[in-house]
Amino acid sequence: MPDEMASPLIRGRGGSRYFEATMSELDAPVIGILGTGDFSRSLARRLVASGYQVMVGSRTPKRSVALFPEEAEVTSQMEAASQADLLFVAVFPEHYSTLVQLKPTLAGKTLVDVSNALQINKDGPSNAQQLADLFPESVVVKGFNTISAWALQMGPRDGSKQVFLCSNSSQAKNAVAQLCQRMGFIPVDMGRLSSSLEIENHPLYLFPSWRIPVLCTLILFTVFYLYNFIHDILQPYIRAGKNNFYKMPIETVNVTLPSVALVMLALVYLPGLLAAFLQMWWGTKYRRFPNWLDRWLTRRKQFGLCSFLCAALHAIYSLSLPMRKSARYKLLNLAFKQVKNMVEDSWVEEEVWRMELYVSVGILALGLLSLLAVTSLPSVSNTVNWREFSFIQSTLGYCALFMATLHTLLFGWDRAFDPAQYHFNLPPTFMLVLILPITVLLGRMVLFAPCMSRRLKQIRRGWEKSRHIRFILPEDNGYSGPEDISNV
Amino acid sequence: MPDEMASPLIRGRGGSRYFEATMSELDAPVIGILGTGDFSRSLARRLVASGYQVMVGSRTPKRSVALFPEEAEVTSQMEAASQADLLFVAVFPEHYSTLVQLKPTLAGKTLVDVSNALQINKDGPSNAQQLADLFPESVVVKGFNTISAWALQMGPRDGSKQVFLCSNSSQAKNAVAQLCQRMGFIPVDMGRLSSSLEIENHPLYLFPSWRIPVLCTLILFTVFYLYNFIHDILQPYIRAGKNNFYKMPIETVNVTLPSVALVMLALVYLPGLLAAFLQMWWGTKYRRFPNWLDRWLTRRKQFGLCSFLCAALHAIYSLSLPMRKSARYKLLNLAFKQVKNMVEDSWVEEEVWRMELYVSVGILALGLLSLLAVTSLPSVSNTVNWREFSFIQSTLGYCALFMATLHTLLFGWDRAFDPAQYHFNLPPTFMLVLILPITVLLGRMVLFAPCMSRRLKQIRRGWEKSRHIRFILPEDNGYSGPEDISNV
Amino acid sequence: MPDEMASPLIRGRGGSRYFEATMSELDAPVIGILGTGDFSRSLARRLVASGYQVMVGSRTPKRSVALFPEEAEVTSQMEAASQADLLFVAVFPEHYSTLVQLKPTLAGKTLVDVSNALQINKDGPSNAQQLADLFPESVVVKGFNTISAWALQMGPRDGSKQVFLCSNSSQAKNAVAQLCQRMGFIPVDMGRLSSSLEIENHPLYLFPSWRIPVLCTLILFTVFYLYNFIHDILQPYIRAGKNNFYKMPIETVNVTLPSVALVMLALVYLPGLLAAFLQMWWGTKYRRFPNWLDRWLTRRKQFGLCSFLCAALHAIYSLSLPMRKSARYKLLNLAFKQVKNMVEDSWVEEEVWRMELYVSVGILALGLLSLLAVTSLPSVSNTVNWREFSFIQSTLGYCALFMATLHTLLFGWDRAFDPAQYHFNLPPTFMLVLILPITVLLGRMVLFAPCMSRRLKQIRRGWEKSRHIRFILPEDNGYSGPEDISNV
Repeated sequence: MPDEMASPLIRGRGGSRYFEATMSELDAPVIGILGTGDFSRSLARRLVASGYQVMVGSRTPKRSVALFPEEAEVTSQMEAASQADLLFVAVFPEHYSTLVQLKPTLAGKTLVDVSNALQINKDGPSNAQQLADLFPESVVVKGFNTISAWALQMGPRDGSKQVFLCSNSSQAKNAVAQLCQRMGFIPVDMGRLSSSLEIENHPLYLFPSWRIPVLCTLILFTVFYLYNFIHDILQPYIRAGKNNFYKMPIETVNVTLPSVALVMLALVYLPGLLAAFLQMWWGTKYRRFPNWLDRWLTRRKQFGLCSFLCAALHAIYSLSLPMRKSARYKLLNLAFKQVKNMVEDSWVEEEVWRMELYVSVGILALGLLSLLAVTSLPSVSNTVNWREFSFIQSTLGYCALFMATLHTLLFGWDRAFDPAQYHFNLPPTFMLVLILPITVLLGRMVLFAPCMSRRLKQIRRGWEKSRHIRFILPEDNGYSGPEDISNV
Repeated sequence: MPDEMASPLIRGRGGSRYFEATMSELDAPVIGILGTGDFSRSLARRLVASGYQVMVGSRTPKRSVALFPEEAEVTSQMEAASQADLLFVAVFPEHYSTLVQLKPTLAGKTLVDVSNALQINKDGPSNAQQLADLFPESVVVKGFNTISAWALQMGPRDGSKQVFLCSNSSQAKNAVAQLCQRMGFIPVDMGRLSSSLEIENHPLYLFPSWRIPVLCTLILFTVFYLYNFIHDILQPYIRAGKNNFYKMPIETVNVTLPSVALVMLALVYLPGLLAAFLQMWWGTKYRRFPNWLDRWLTRRKQFGLCSFLCAALHAIYSLSLPMRKSARYKLLNLAFKQVKNMVEDSWVEEEVWRMELYVSVGILALGLLSLLAVTSLPSVSNTVNWREFSFIQSTLGYCALFMATLHTLLFGWDRAFDPAQYHFNLPPTFMLVLILPITVLLGRMVLFAPCMSRRLKQIRRGWEKSRHIRFILPEDNGYSGPEDISNV
Repeated sequence: MPDEMASPLIRGRGGSRYFEATMSELDAPVIGILGTGDFSRSLARRLVASGYQVMVGSRTPKRSVALFPEEAEVTSQMEAASQADLLFVAVFPEHYSTLVQLKPTLAGKTLVDVSNALQINKDGPSNAQQLADLFPESVVVKGFNTISAWALQMGPRDGSKQVFLCSNSSQAKNAVAQLCQRMGFIPVDMGRLSSSLEIENHPLYLFPSWRIPVLCTLILFTVFYLYNFIHDILQPYIRAGKNNFYKMPIETVNVTLPSVALVMLALVYLPGLLAAFLQMWWGTKYRRFPNWLDRWLTRRKQFGLCSFLCAALHAIYSLSLPMRKSARYKLLNLAFKQVKNMVEDSWVEEEVWRMELYVSVGILALGLLSLLAVTSLPSVSNTVNWREFSFIQSTLGYCALFMATLHTLLFGWDRAFDPAQYHFNLPPTFMLVLILPITVLLGRMVLFAPCMSRRLKQIRRGWEKSRHIRFILPEDNGYSGPEDISNV
């Protein structure tokens, strides 16, 4: 949200003054680009399309000219450096030193460092800081490194539109931010140049927030798969020589997936519960949670989506069961047996009810989980206010957890008490799996008890046990939504 | 991305002059925060990360200092008030009066009211207006109340990034909007301070636009479920003592869901049709639709998504049918019967064709509905132009309605003429359900008639029956897309 | 979209000076609207809501006043033209000439042309250019034409929020961009007024990037469907008089869909492979790809989504197989035969394993494709960095292609060597379908060979075969992500 008046004051303050003058007077300011690689060419095309005059500084202007759009002027590096006041440095960082000859010409000008690191660099200095050291009289702005030549050329469609910018001069940063916005990107101010290391590392990260949830899913899957393999396949084979190995690709997977889904879903709601109990125990909200709990709280969305993926795969696997040849052969053999034994009606009312109920409840649980998954899409969650977000993620989420637990309980029916299920003395999987979600649901119910919920509300509004004489601090904005989210 | 320097003109106009001066001169302006609650701390962290100097005014600075990031200065309220020109008031509204001592110091400064209401307040005055009354010499900007401490701390990821701002001073509003953008949020100008009531109420609403569509879905579901229960379960039980109660969790639900889905889908297209006929009848588009129609027109997306949810659940329920124990038992008993009766081939060609056709058409209808649902995601609809949006929502939408109707007709086949279907003299559900969509489809076809469509087009371009002498008004921008959307 | 220089300097430069003065001084600048159609009314409502003073110029102010919000002043066209400095021209372009009388009054003012073309206009002049010709002393800005009255009224919810702007005066363009942002839209600078033709044509395009992928899908579907029809239905009918026509709506469709899905998925990865081999062959990346390859590279997302749609429909069709009457009749007849032949156990271990494996692999392939589809949603891809995007689209994508190919291979099992499958000497579909994906996978493996991948990496960093003496050019930003995307 801009301000359309700028004072004559700035005009005298060096740096980008010519830039601004040209902006208002010539209607299309000159932007320089040093380097003629892919990025340079895409950038030139984009700048031209956004209404800028572009001067490309090349070591071999005659050879390079064919690669650039007609509207861009391809010239020597020195010429470009002297004509433009804002220059993009589209040169590999290892060759920055080749630009040193331009030093006096670039003094007082803005250099945009668009380079990337080849591997994560934790210690610094960043490429941008090295550039700043080489050109101490120029102003360096870091940015555009997360944008690819591809995105520049095609327009900002796929991939992120955000351009992270940092610089020690907010003047220069603003000019670049503006440029950025005209090109259709979204500038994000990251502060001073010291942030450039982080900005350069950013595109090298690979789903950092997904690492633990995905790892967790894989470990749970492996453990449960092995357990089910031993329980359902190995044990009957050893005991009775029954060859059930055909179950490995589908049936065992299909018993494992819902187990993982249910445990992961419980893990979404467990940290909030722990946080609430910790606050109750401490009697204050002004104490920091341990680090692992903090990180867990911020990963709940990822845990939830992993759970949803498993649940959705479980649904497809389940639906595919009757179409398999194995199911058909079994049915045919059963039919043969029924005829042989002259059983007119094989209907077992209890078995029918059990299955109708758990299938129906399971479908509803999946429906609720789908709603949760859809509302966690950035563009959807962007349109709901916090109360709505909290309603979906907390109320609907607990409903989904409850339905999924009920689905498992109905699936179990009375088998928990059937010794035939305890092969090798191992309980059936569904029993192990139920421990965590039932604990979470009971914990949530405890917090619903009037004395508990009242106390928690007090704490969340700032009350502290340790200073019960003290009046409630007249602070905070009375906003209860987010705390509900983060803590329950 | 804004401009932090304002012209000398403004510099003489009180208010935020020092703020703007510091902005351009010290490169990191001082922002004050009064209060030390959760919101205050998250805000401080965020401001520091966005490159601002932060001064937190606390009643107990020594005790509070540990809660804030190192870079923020925690000091007395008076000190913060005197140093900063823009201050966030992160204090519970009921304690605003405790700040009165700062009144002279805060004169001419900008106060941002971030408070929330605890319940919907229809009458006012809003918290922000109360603050403005307490500090008549300061400029109050309302905003950030929809942003949670959580979102501030984590960065604007989940939940909305929009910050609704209002103030009687557009100067101050711009400064806050700027701040807002630097912190990564999207400022939305809501006009003068009188809008603050609406802004404060905003986070308290719970899906207002979904209320009627969801209610409608639930009522239809209940009515159809009861009807089906009587028709398919109760009647056979009473007449023939047949125990079909096992059908309640799945089969009855699965007959009810498609009925709801089809009726809801027809309700998406009915209001546009009504609007078109009203315009034809009135002979003008310059008359307001009745209120209920206006509101219905704006809720079509929600109706459509409810319909899609029912259709998707119907698909999953249908696909789960053969995996149930009940289906297996029935099949086994049928096999037994077939063997007993020595029927070599039980194939019924007509039944086979009926089912192959209605299943295939049903799947295609679901596919079309899925496309509609996906394109109603904000981020997808954001990338299509109006002609494309209209093509999807109107053309593809009517195709989906047609396919869904055909699916039901094929499902019905010749059963409408089979007296055995009329238990208790009640027609089978699919017949009731077909009335509305067939009406809508016929209505749409009437509008396709050349004379009708020509007249409608004239009306939509501004022609009026009552003034047929009058030439067509040289107004409007000739844009036909949106009217098509809103009216057909 | 700001302008950091306005300053007293500009104040003397005609145009929007009063506008800017009023902005800062009166707190609510006057915006004029000429015309009283739908667009005009919605615009007025939106401007008022965004805190502007609105003057509507009507030919019949008394009659029109009821249609506008109270806060807007409805007056004569002349009055509006003289009061406001920025005016929206919401009049049908064929009636622009009726405004000529306002010419002297409008001199020096900014006119926003919001009109649309009725059909794609390739030659020009655009409406905006015609307006500029009529009012040579005014500044014309093109924009808002892609925004519908509907979107203006409801707030920018559905449809795109982007407002494409162009003008020969960047001053005026900035003012409009600002207005635009205050109204909640996103201004996109499209350069000079010559772009107005493109902007006017924009809303008339209907999914230009989808045309070829969709056409490709339809052609493949038709070809494969006919092939399968001949192979599976016609041939048995002619040879053995076997009536399999009931298979047409589901079974034949369900053999066709996965064929289309697999070929389309291979077509997603083929162009990147071709590009890589071309670069290897040429020994440089500085040569332009042929046009068809360039366009193909930019359509990969659409190809992928078409493939996903087919795969998802294939999944639903497959899951619906056992619920059909025909499957039931067949099963019953098989049971009858089994009993008649006294076969106690019809289990065929190999058939069971084949199906368990290909179903399981197929589900996993669908799961991977779903992940790809979800991450291609704009709002999701917006939150991932390029390395993540490349990981998903390239690594996961090839995994999905591999799984889908494996699914088909397992489905085929040893049938490729079974002469009974070669009706009419036509090989079964799955064999034809496998050619392309296996080629693509092999091609990718070739590029993984150390010598190949090293050379390709060199080329992508700027190395050229033709100048092997030359040192590597110190250009480009060292960014490897996007090239991976675009080329492999």
